[in-house]
Parts: sequence; structure tokens; C-alpha cells
Amino acid sequence: MSHLFPSLRPISSLLLRRMSSSVPVKEFDYLVLGGGSGGIASARRAREFNVSVGLIESGRLGGTCVNVGCVPKKVMYNCSTHAEFIRDHADYGFDVTLNKFDFTKIKESRDAYIRRLNSIYESNLNGSDVELIRGYGTFQDDGSIEVNGQRYRGKHTLIAVGGFPTLPDIPGAELGTDSDGFFEFETLPKKTVIVGAGYIAVEIAGVLANLGSETHLLIRYDNVLRTFDHTLATSLTEAMEKGPVKVHKRTQVTKVEKDSHGTLTVTSNEGVIEGVEKLIWAIGRKPHTEKLNLDKIGVETDGAGHIKVDDYQNTSRPGVYAVGDAIGKWLLTPVAIAAGRRLSHRLFNGESNLRLNYENIATVVFSHPLVGTVGLTEKEAVEKYGLEALTIYTSKFNPMYHSVTTHKEQCVMKMICAGEQEKVVGIHLLGLGSDEMLQGFAVAVSMGATKKQFDDTVAIHPTYAEELVTMRGGKKVTSPPPF
Amino acid sequence: MSHLFPSLRPISSLLLRRMSSSVPVKEFDYLVLGGGSGGIASARRAREFNVSVGLIESGRLGGTCVNVGCVPKKVMYNCSTHAEFIRDHADYGFDVTLNKFDFTKIKESRDAYIRRLNSIYESNLNGSDVELIRGYGTFQDDGSIEVNGQRYRGKHTLIAVGGFPTLPDIPGAELGTDSDGFFEFETLPKKTVIVGAGYIAVEIAGVLANLGSETHLLIRYDNVLRTFDHTLATSLTEAMEKGPVKVHKRTQVTKVEKDSHGTLTVTSNEGVIEGVEKLIWAIGRKPHTEKLNLDKIGVETDGAGHIKVDDYQNTSRPGVYAVGDAIGKWLLTPVAIAAGRRLSHRLFNGESNLRLNYENIATVVFSHPLVGTVGLTEKEAVEKYGLEALTIYTSKFNPMYHSVTTHKEQCVMKMICAGEQEKVVGIHLLGLGSDEMLQGFAVAVSMGATKKQFDDTVAIHPTYAEELVTMRGGKKVTSPPPF
Repeated sequence: MSHLFPSLRPISSLLLRRMSSSVPVKEFDYLVLGGGSGGIASARRAREFNVSVGLIESGRLGGTCVNVGCVPKKVMYNCSTHAEFIRDHADYGFDVTLNKFDFTKIKESRDAYIRRLNSIYESNLNGSDVELIRGYGTFQDDGSIEVNGQRYRGKHTLIAVGGFPTLPDIPGAELGTDSDGFFEFETLPKKTVIVGAGYIAVEIAGVLANLGSETHLLIRYDNVLRTFDHTLATSLTEAMEKGPVKVHKRTQVTKVEKDSHGTLTVTSNEGVIEGVEKLIWAIGRKPHTEKLNLDKIGVETDGAGHIKVDDYQNTSRPGVYAVGDAIGKWLLTPVAIAAGRRLSHRLFNGESNLRLNYENIATVVFSHPLVGTVGLTEKEAVEKYGLEALTIYTSKFNPMYHSVTTHKEQCVMKMICAGEQEKVVGIHLLGLGSDEMLQGFAVAVSMGATKKQFDDTVAIHPTYAEELVTMRGGKKVTSPPPF
Repeated sequence: MSHLFPSLRPISSLLLRRMSSSVPVKEFDYLVLGGGSGGIASARRAREFNVSVGLIESGRLGGTCVNVGCVPKKVMYNCSTHAEFIRDHADYGFDVTLNKFDFTKIKESRDAYIRRLNSIYESNLNGSDVELIRGYGTFQDDGSIEVNGQRYRGKHTLIAVGGFPTLPDIPGAELGTDSDGFFEFETLPKKTVIVGAGYIAVEIAGVLANLGSETHLLIRYDNVLRTFDHTLATSLTEAMEKGPVKVHKRTQVTKVEKDSHGTLTVTSNEGVIEGVEKLIWAIGRKPHTEKLNLDKIGVETDGAGHIKVDDYQNTSRPGVYAVGDAIGKWLLTPVAIAAGRRLSHRLFNGESNLRLNYENIATVVFSHPLVGTVGLTEKEAVEKYGLEALTIYTSKFNPMYHSVTTHKEQCVMKMICAGEQEKVVGIHLLGLGSDEMLQGFAVAVSMGATKKQFDDTVAIHPTYAEELVTMRGGKKVTSPPPF
């Protein structure tokens, strides 16, 4: 691509704007704004149908997931499981001395791994013959996208710009960081405050606390994961309180100050936490839509800036679509990927009715202990089916791993069944194995499995997962759950 | 129960036999011979239908699974994963010194755990009001069972006596031990030879080698797990060869001798292994049926002594049933349990058509790396559906856990689909997560899931299990698999 405006020749921004309206526009069948999981997946899938595809990205390829989300998070989770094994070594007969934990080492390995993934993503785009356009793209009145003074237009355009973590509006908030900043830590903080009760907050808290940082988790109400089934929310909160994280309930930060030692003083309605090396806000995320000029092209957003889409990812402007965190619904990588791929099939392969079914999307939280969930919470099930229609199976047990350990961590499992046929409409898991266990059950639940079909499946012994096919003693629900 | 023959009054065995034919017989609605997983499960379930139940057991409650099988095996597997974590600690930033591994300590904890389970099993039987009869039972001509001179008869009688490991017929075989003996080891052997290629052999080999014993696995052909899908068999064999186990292929032991140091010399067609501290035979198992006098009551067995049963667990004698390892089909605890429970429902709850469906029974091998499998092997699928009908999806990848480790171990996944609809008829897994991952997929496969239903399920990221719902590039089978 030629440089239209060589840097030798200064041009005022006004002149640039005028000229750019008359410069040639590069056309694609499909133009994707955002090189995260959803955008890349959709772009590459579109190329399989032999349409021309351009993809615009100003940052590192792979978006939140690869760079400051799922991937580095899971590496750190894996790292923190080593700390748990060290905790239990003696119980399993291993007399071990921990000489040192080197946070910098795992950080460097993790960064190197992510750089490898970045370059794999780039090779994949090249291999698929997707044209990668480097720079920040903004919409123009005519629906084209301008990047570094050059214009691009798609017959179809996908917005997959993702989101970013937010900070609260209180004095000193900027003295803290967010999950993006967490992944830049070069050393383990001696003392950390994490504010938030969502999955990002509990994941980071679990990692840091297990690795040895004095970790305070400040939550607004009485439980973490309040949007999850209440049994999971309360069970995880209880389990975390027994572990190394110091959970502060009903706590809201009012101000943050830097003290003379360079550490932070975090003041809340509940008191003061001093000597805080790192403060991490994990209170929510916003979509990256503000600077896109969406208003210019008639793409509607909601009050929080999320792009409004219908069931087929169509925005309010024909020919413009959106997937992923930018639409604010299920902020999960595989959801963005699945929606993006289905969209490409619909647009370029004639599968005109194809769309992502947003029901029964499973998710795992890499907390300590692990949480996994698919389908309806008890509250949602009561709303959908009514109290009388539900039968709930629950199980709490000490997993065999902990049969010989001093430290114990229970598994909690809950299955929500609806109707005479006892259709399995929700599965909620806490404890060892909840991560890998869930995917297969998600297939079964998506297929509309009944409790009997679970029961008819022979157990695999000894696993923790077998509990889900041997549950008995289902109880009717007598009153709506607390939340 | 009164003692009919007080020990003060000696009685010749001839007299005893004569008298016993006239002594009162204690009657039960259901009499269960064997207090292992299958027997106990069936007995307790029968009690839920308010019939009288007696259960005869001479040894420890819980049978093979609890005492010398699944349970202690899994504890040792868990123990050996600690060794793997120690191997990887440095890669995750933990500078650790292993001072000592104390095999005795984990052995004692394991034994204590099993004693707890034994007593839980006994309490459960008491709680269910099953009468526990202590001693070795043998059938009498009239169909009753004699235990320590007392007779018992069931309106229905279940044989659930399990099995035991066999030794080969070669000179010095008795110098070795078997899997039962493995669980009596008080210390870690310096050098171990394990003979066998089945799941017990590979599990014990993996444990001992990871814990630091110089471990030689002697297999008869070129691969371990030869009854499994050939991709699993070859992949596990290759992975084991890269690990700490020394695999000796096409090796058959011809004699065993004790040397002057008290260690063993194991001679095979391939050479001599000297200084062997422990030799473990894991070449097969036999049913505990020989001394039951089955011929007296017309219960037929096959050449190997396995009790012949129909699909409903009926033996050739009306009113006598068999489940578990004694029937030699799927030597798995949950299979014995499921068959035993269904039998009780059929006999005592009027569910006259209830029986265990022996299709799609999933199983996990706690090898290093793990193996999981459900449904048909490729060979079985070719036989059942024909070459042309099959589409095979495979995936090999480096799991994220190993993204930062020096030691690598790949995951291998294979999905066998049949027919136009691509019904999933077999799933075969090797690597991290294959244990907990499988159960849910087993439910889906039992339900008759198609590849499309897998594809329609949104992935859970980052897990290893998600690979199974994102597989592409299925290949037709062009020639029958090697085995």
C-alpha cells in the first residue's frame, strides 16, 4: 500500500480531513475492525468462502483474551496451582524446601508465550490471506473506515473492538491499576488490594494470594460472583474466606492516597488498609466504542456504549455487524469467536439462518477453588419454569485428592431440573475438576438432556465428574432463592 | 445369630457336613455373595424396596476397588502428580529443593483413608439394615450358601465375588508379586520390573517411575493398551517412552531368579534385567469362582471361570444372578455398581425390563499421561459401520500448562463419527484433563450426539476439553486400522 501522505510534507489536520474525503478507498468484501478473538475468527472464516477480507488493528493481535485476559490469566492460574501443590507436598510424602518464588521468571515466560501467540495469529492471518491493516480505525460519514489517513470500505463491516476495564470516580482512583496493569507486574506485590466481586476479581485474588501476596478482596455486598447461581456464589465466598484471601464484605472504597513510603492507603466505609503495594480495580468493563464515530453512521449503542445488535449480530445500520465484548453480552472469547464465525457463514456462505444460540453458554472461573457453570441459575429457573416445576440435586463432598491432605477444599455440585421429565437446565460446579469437567456436560445440556439420561450413563471411577451421573435425592424448591 | 457349634465341642468335618444339611437355614429375600462395589450397591438398593438382605464377605468391605484397586491407585496417581509438579516447579518460578520422598508416609495415609472407607461401607450396610455375614461362602447342593457352618438362602441370590490377579506359569514367577502386592509396598523399590501392557501395568509403571523407582515395563507386543483405539495405544506408548518408564517391547519373561543380594534377576527373550527389587505381574485377572461350588448348583462358567449371564445378569440357574468382575465383562467398579443396582430395581421394584446397557461405557486410565475413552475404537467402528461411513477428527496439541515448561506432553484427541449425520460413536483422549473431561462427553455420546451438536456447543476457554467442540477437518478412513 502506498503512503499517500509522506511525512516530509506536513499537512494540517483540517486539510487532511478535506483531502481524505476524495482519496481512493480500498474496498473489501468484508472489513473487520478489531483483531481480537472475534474479529480474527470471523475474518479467517470469511476467507474460506473466498471473499476479500481486511482486518484493522492498532494493538497486539489477539485482543483481550491473548494479551490481557484468558491466556495470561490461565498461565498465572497454573502457576498458582504449583503453590497449592507445594502446600500439599508434605501430605503426599514429599519433604520440600521452597527457597524462592521468582515472579519475574514466570512473567517473562508468560510474555514470551504470548509473543509466540501474537506471531501465530499474524501468520494465521497471512496464511488465510486476510489483509492486516495496522492502525486505529474510525468510521467516516460514508461508512468507510479511516486508518492513518487511508480509507477502507467493506461491503460488509464487522465491529469487534472489544472493551477495557474501568476505574471508579473517587479521589485517587488513578493510583490503582486494573487487570491490564496486573499483567504488567514485574514482581509479586507484598500487599495487594483488589476491588470487585466478579470473576476477574476472584481470579486475580486467588492467584496473588496463593503466590504469597497479602491479598485483600473488597466486595460491595456479602458474596462474590453474585450473578452466578447463589449456591456457587455463597460456596465460593465461604471457600475463599477459609483460604489465603482476606475477604472484606460490604466494603466500598472512598479514597486512595499515596503515603510517604510510596505505598497506598485505601480508605473505605469499613476502615483503612495501609501499606498497599498494588491496588487493582476489577469493577467492570466498558466497550471500546467511544472514539469510533458510531453516531456518524447510525450504529446505535446503549447507555453504556455497547453496540445494539439483533440475534444475527446486525447493528442498526445495514451491512454493519458487531460481535464480542463491544456488544456487552457474555464477555467470553468463545462467544465472540462463535458469533463471528457464524456471521461469516451467514454472510458469505449462504447460510442465511445461521446465528449463535446464546442459550446454555458454559463458563469456567479460574478461582481457587474452581467454578464452572452452564445453563440457568436457580433464580432464573424459578422465573422461567416456576417453583413447582423444579427439582434440585445437590452434592457436597471431600474430593479424593484431599483424602490425605491437611488442607481440605470441598466440591459442591448442583443440578437444576425442570418439568416432569426432569430436563437438566442448569449445572453449577465448585471445586477440583470443575474446569475440564464442564464442556461435555455443556454438550449434553445443549442437547436437552434429562436427569434420566444422566443416570443412564455409567460413572467413571474415581473421578469427581462421576458425581453428576450418580446424584439422588432431588428436592423440590419451596421458596425463591435469595439472589 | 446363635452359635450352633461352640468351639468347646470338637466336631469332625464329616460330621459337620452331615449335620449342616439338617441345620436351620436362615432365609433372606436377597442374599449377596461378595461385599465389593457391585454386591454392596445391589444389596443396599434392594433394602430401599424393603426386602430382607444378607451380604456375605470374608475379607475387607469394598472389594478390589476400595482395597487394592481404584481407590489406592488413584491416591498413588495423585501422589505421582506431585512428582510431576516438582519436575515443573522451576519453570513456573518456584526454586524448590526436594529433600526426601517418604513413600511410607503416603502409604500410611492411604491405608488410613481406606480403613475409613471400610468402616463407612460397614456403617452404610448397617444403616441400610443389610445383615453382614462374615466368612467365606460356598454354595450347597440345595442352592443355599454355607458360611462357617451356618446356612443361608436367598429367594434371589447374587454372586458378586470379583476377581484376582494372575501369575504366569514360568520358573520363579512366585518371586514376583501382583497389583495386590504393590499396595503392600512399605518403601519405594529402587528398581522395579512390571510385566503387562494393560491399564493396571501402565498405571503402576507411571506411578513408580514418577516417584523415582527405576521402572522397566515389559510388554509382549509393540504397544500398551492394545484393546484401546490404536491411536491411543500408540500415542501412550510413544509418550511413555519419552518419560521415565523404560519400555521393553516384544519382551516375554522366561524365568525369575533370586540373586545373592536378595534382589531378582528377570530373564526374558530380550535379555536379563538384574538387581530388581520388585517384580510386579500385571498380566491379567481371574474370577474368584473356583471354590464356590458353582457346578453343584448348575451355574455355568466359561473356560476362564467367568460366570455366564444374559443381558439381565441372570445366570443359568433361575434365581441366581451375577455382576462385576466375576462375569469378566468390563472389569470396572461403576459397571458392577450400575448392573447391581439395576438388578435390584428389576427384582424388587417391579421394573422388569431394567438392565444395564453395556454400550458406551467410558473409562479412564490413570497413566502418565492420562487416557480416557468412550464408545467404539476405530477398528470396532469400521467393523460396525464400514470404512466409507466413518469420518475421523483428530487433534494433537501442546496443552497450555506446558507452554512455559521444559518438559512437554502433548494432548491427543480423536473423535469417530458415523454416517451422514456424523453421529459421534467414539471419543479417545490422551493427556492433561482426560480424566475429568470424559464423563460429560459420555453422557452426550450415550444420548446419540452428532458432530453438529458438539459444534453447536460454545467452547469453554481456556480448557483442553474445548478442543472437542471445535474440531474441524474430518477425514474419511481409507484402510482398516492396524489393530
